[in-house]
Amino acid sequence: MNKMITSIESKNISLDLSLKLLEVAVDKGKELGMPFSIAIVDKVGNLKAFSAMDSAPVLSLEIAQNKAFSAAAYNRPTHEWYDRLKDDPPLLHGIVHTERLIIFGGGYPIKINSELIGGIGVSGGHYTHDMQVCEAALEVVKQFELEEV
Amino acid sequence: MNKMITSIESKNISLDLSLKLLEVAVDKGKELGMPFSIAIVDKVGNLKAFSAMDSAPVLSLEIAQNKAFSAAAYNRPTHEWYDRLKDDPPLLHGIVHTERLIIFGGGYPIKINSELIGGIGVSGGHYTHDMQVCEAALEVVKQFELEEV
Amino acid sequence: MNKMITSIESKNISLDLSLKLLEVAVDKGKELGMPFSIAIVDKVGNLKAFSAMDSAPVLSLEIAQNKAFSAAAYNRPTHEWYDRLKDDPPLLHGIVHTERLIIFGGGYPIKINSELIGGIGVSGGHYTHDMQVCEAALEVVKQFELEEV
Amino acid sequence: MNKMITSIESKNISLDLSLKLLEVAVDKGKELGMPFSIAIVDKVGNLKAFSAMDSAPVLSLEIAQNKAFSAAAYNRPTHEWYDRLKDDPPLLHGIVHTERLIIFGGGYPIKINSELIGGIGVSGGHYTHDMQVCEAALEVVKQFELEEV
Repeated sequence: MNKMITSIESKNISLDLSLKLLEVAVDKGKELGMPFSIAIVDKVGNLKAFSAMDSAPVLSLEIAQNKAFSAAAYNRPTHEWYDRLKDDPPLLHGIVHTERLIIFGGGYPIKINSELIGGIGVSGGHYTHDMQVCEAALEVVKQFELEEV
Repeated sequence: MNKMITSIESKNISLDLSLKLLEVAVDKGKELGMPFSIAIVDKVGNLKAFSAMDSAPVLSLEIAQNKAFSAAAYNRPTHEWYDRLKDDPPLLHGIVHTERLIIFGGGYPIKINSELIGGIGVSGGHYTHDMQVCEAALEVVKQFELEEV
Repeated sequence: MNKMITSIESKNISLDLSLKLLEVAVDKGKELGMPFSIAIVDKVGNLKAFSAMDSAPVLSLEIAQNKAFSAAAYNRPTHEWYDRLKDDPPLLHGIVHTERLIIFGGGYPIKINSELIGGIGVSGGHYTHDMQVCEAALEVVKQFELEEV
Repeated sequence: MNKMITSIESKNISLDLSLKLLEVAVDKGKELGMPFSIAIVDKVGNLKAFSAMDSAPVLSLEIAQNKAFSAAAYNRPTHEWYDRLKDDPPLLHGIVHTERLIIFGGGYPIKINSELIGGIGVSGGHYTHDMQVCEAALEVVKQFELEEV
């Protein structure tokens, strides 16, 4: 029994960073002139922080959370799914029914120096707008990466 | 009333065999260098034994269980579904919404001498990887079949 | 590996016996002059046969199924629960929230010579009426027991 | 932005330790002569490993998982809930409806040197039996603590 590894270390996004990302995302939403819902989840997809801009559409509340969940749960931006599915019919007709899985743009893993620590999901506009909001927030994460090196 | 058959005999996978299959599946997962979730269910799809390899993706936990359920519940490997659906549009667009039904590879019935006793489901890689893990485990079942003849 | 037990035998109620029990239960319902829902489940609680008498209350459809499920899943008549719970507060306030668990009368295990093969659940009247319907049906099972000895 | 803590370290139970706990729990179940379901979850309550002993009651499958979830999710043994609730009527009648929360014995946090790494849940007997099975498994964890000091 001596050599057994009893636990595995991992990192989860902090609330401080989560709130910073929400702040930047809301600013980007105002710049685009559209009301978005923005969700930050931890590494396993549990909700960490959330903001719905005033007048954000009701359906965006849940879609934003599901995008963030999908991105963290598979460690993959949601917009990459369709390219992987389009020539693989069993998945195209099958995996899209997975509860909470979103296969269009607006969800991204959050990583620090390549390690997954959480996910961000945005909903409210066309997914191309949602992706712009995510990308603005993720620029902030890159800054922290440089500092930590 | 004299001739009525009042009950039907059936066999369910034992915990001992379930744990043996998990062990072999985890070994195969390590060989492939990817973290999988592996579920064993009984003949009616109820969970019997389960292992999530360290760092297995969160979504794989439920998909593995649903694959095992689908395989036992229909007595059919999950990868056989798409071929049956692809030229049958009502099913292709309809039955895929069945709760817990998975139509891509990675779930197999477990049989002893052709009799259904349970199901195995694996998730974590592309379904072609998941299928390799299942097949490694099912090789063990074949050994018991020979012994029982 | 030679000595491993790979599977466990068990018996499940047949459709023939299930339909016979429904027939007797419906007759008892007519005698009582009330419309009941009657559910027969197999040994693990899956629905095997069902009849809703004309004008049976809508809620009775699900309660009858849950009673049968509870009786089979715990191998215990549902009316025995309260006596076990009343002096055990953590269970009294806790286990009653278990999904599908019914703790009042109208669900019974179905056994042949002491072996559990299924469950019956009845709903539509006060639980004392529901119990009478179940008991009428279970008289039939006793007859088969004698024949099988 | 310079001083922001971007992520939080945490430990999750390994599959190796999870399987060891299942093994010890099954042995204890055999000693007690009752069939139990045993679930191990990680620190956030996601299923890590599971075994249902042969003939374990159907309802025990989910209750075991919910006990493990409750223990990890609140970092508290499930049997401690009732004492906290019994003189606090709003909680006694309210929080017991929380999805997946179990307030009777048979679920324990798993800790290494006081740090939460997962949860164990057992169901199949009266909760006093379930607790004995958990406690046997947790003795093993203590051994690893000593080694790690």
